[in-house]
Amino acid sequence: MQPDLLDSHVLHQFRTRSPLTHCMTNDVVQTFTANVLLALGASPAMVIEAEEAEQFAALADALLVNVGTLTAPRAQSMRRAIESTVAAGTPWVLDPVAVGALAFRTRFCQQILSLKPAAIRGNASEILALAGMSAGGRGVDSTDTAASALTAAQTLARQTHAVVVVTGEVDHITDGQRTRTVAGGDLLMTRVVGTGCALSAVVAACCSLPGDRLDNATAACGFMKRAGSVALTQSRGPGSFVSAFLDALYALEEQV
Amino acid sequence: MQPDLLDSHVLHQFRTRSPLTHCMTNDVVQTFTANVLLALGASPAMVIEAEEAEQFAALADALLVNVGTLTAPRAQSMRRAIESTVAAGTPWVLDPVAVGALAFRTRFCQQILSLKPAAIRGNASEILALAGMSAGGRGVDSTDTAASALTAAQTLARQTHAVVVVTGEVDHITDGQRTRTVAGGDLLMTRVVGTGCALSAVVAACCSLPGDRLDNATAACGFMKRAGSVALTQSRGPGSFVSAFLDALYALEEQV
Amino acid sequence: MQPDLLDSHVLHQFRTRSPLTHCMTNDVVQTFTANVLLALGASPAMVIEAEEAEQFAALADALLVNVGTLTAPRAQSMRRAIESTVAAGTPWVLDPVAVGALAFRTRFCQQILSLKPAAIRGNASEILALAGMSAGGRGVDSTDTAASALTAAQTLARQTHAVVVVTGEVDHITDGQRTRTVAGGDLLMTRVVGTGCALSAVVAACCSLPGDRLDNATAACGFMKRAGSVALTQSRGPGSFVSAFLDALYALEEQV
Repeated sequence: MQPDLLDSHVLHQFRTRSPLTHCMTNDVVQTFTANVLLALGASPAMVIEAEEAEQFAALADALLVNVGTLTAPRAQSMRRAIESTVAAGTPWVLDPVAVGALAFRTRFCQQILSLKPAAIRGNASEILALAGMSAGGRGVDSTDTAASALTAAQTLARQTHAVVVVTGEVDHITDGQRTRTVAGGDLLMTRVVGTGCALSAVVAACCSLPGDRLDNATAACGFMKRAGSVALTQSRGPGSFVSAFLDALYALEEQV
Repeated sequence: MQPDLLDSHVLHQFRTRSPLTHCMTNDVVQTFTANVLLALGASPAMVIEAEEAEQFAALADALLVNVGTLTAPRAQSMRRAIESTVAAGTPWVLDPVAVGALAFRTRFCQQILSLKPAAIRGNASEILALAGMSAGGRGVDSTDTAASALTAAQTLARQTHAVVVVTGEVDHITDGQRTRTVAGGDLLMTRVVGTGCALSAVVAACCSLPGDRLDNATAACGFMKRAGSVALTQSRGPGSFVSAFLDALYALEEQV
Repeated sequence: MQPDLLDSHVLHQFRTRSPLTHCMTNDVVQTFTANVLLALGASPAMVIEAEEAEQFAALADALLVNVGTLTAPRAQSMRRAIESTVAAGTPWVLDPVAVGALAFRTRFCQQILSLKPAAIRGNASEILALAGMSAGGRGVDSTDTAASALTAAQTLARQTHAVVVVTGEVDHITDGQRTRTVAGGDLLMTRVVGTGCALSAVVAACCSLPGDRLDNATAACGFMKRAGSVALTQSRGPGSFVSAFLDALYALEEQV
């Protein structure tokens, strides 16, 4: 299929199935993540107490684990939720925010990597750090380009059997053998908190859909880039961008 | 009084008294809840540590308890806050997010029901589950219509002496004897996170006002539906809806 | 330098250095705080687990401690982060939300005051309470004007060697000897949650810049008032204000 047709096909599946997406994500991006999933037609739910997270992960279509504001109790809940998805055979996705830069989350990310994530989504510094090839970025920001992390992403994909998504102005998506790119990012999107974190949630929802996982993760990147491009033409800065971006995600189907 | 005059009367009281509303709510909707209360003229405050929650609940005009991202420590804080409002004679409102679907929060909701909430606000699946008539919805979404939960709502209202608000495209508000309806919802509002949760906070604030509690809770539903209708005409999707909705709540008094 | 030139100079430093700003802030304002810092060109990061907060505070350019939704574990993390900044010689800023009104946070604020904050930012009731001259406001709202707290602010500045910023329709900024004012606020800004909390984060970022700390804190107030004035002319209420405000912060440099 051509990229545009593929995107449309995945989007149709997405809206039809409305994936119930269990988000265990950081405190800063919860609202935006939920609104991005809702705008696209998914059903997000944030459930965090260990007992509940374990129970809910078995009911949901996909799980997102984002370590941005990790705490010790949250790490414990995440581990139980991940084990529950593994037992249920549903996919989970790792967003290793600022891995490499901070010891506690780096240990945690390395431990849960063995629990077979369906996909990993990070910026270049995070993917390099997770692959053991660098010491992390500056806070939550990447100090490397996505292209520079491509070899690390491919190695990590082969080691973990996950689809690895390295995002930046151009996104690179790889399963270790095949690699796709999605262009169209803009620096303005780095002036809005949570665009990368929300993409990880969309990747998780897409991983629950039928079809090739690499295709589905690539489509997730495509949705965000496409809505971002529309929003850029309609906004005067990062504030109006957020509104326009959610509107564009909501209208995405009609534009194909 | 006619519905429109009643709404205006309650709104006038709301803006004059600016109810100090203690919100113990879920992590996903805190900002939106605060902004909805502020736009309407209330004074929201989120206070969560057990010692502080107990102290603050005694000072506030109303308390909201929303179990969306319940944790064990938060449940303990909520219980102390509720006991404090009961001792102070001020109203508290329960929003039983996803009750029935998850065991931990279901036990907690059933326990605190005995502490005499002034009102309960949920979607149809939640009200059915809380009344013991079903096993809950799909994640946080309702799989039932508000009308289908009306009998459950009336039973629950008689059992708990709370006003029960079942929301959907049409809202039903009942004290077990009398039942009101407020129409005017739109599917777009289900694509924005927190509209239901924010309504629960407005119901809590309205429960602190003088007058009939059923009237006050009905007015709360009316504010949200009315602002939603205005916002719908001014928005192109869920992103612009949020801005327009807060603007419409802020301007509400002038439209009556 | 004239105020306008000073503002431009500090803004240029801000955008050039992009201060890595560690925010330990309340749950209600995290997204808005991050977006305000990003719009101005800083690099925000929210890191909260004690081990990580200690490690990250030593790497960051500045730390914000906001006690709005303080919990016992968070207080412990904040203390370790503060000690880490003190050891590293980097500035930290205190936002004493609702101090005086609630015992737990009042004790905590008094304890950490001895750890030499670079600046303290609060409303009049908070500054009066922190200086021991009153018992606090109504919830998180001030019941006093900024001018009425000026003597308290000056005393507090001399006692703690911090720059004290009392905000309201007119902001007063003092180091105990010198006092500056920044006018231009509007009541609409009090109908949006987090404008004060976000200013505290901008003050923290500005405290990391070279130059006179009083000048830098004054410039932070100026950025927010200036963007607020622009946004007011472009908004119809608190919802559209938020978008317009972030856009105006982002465009600020070009307007000088």
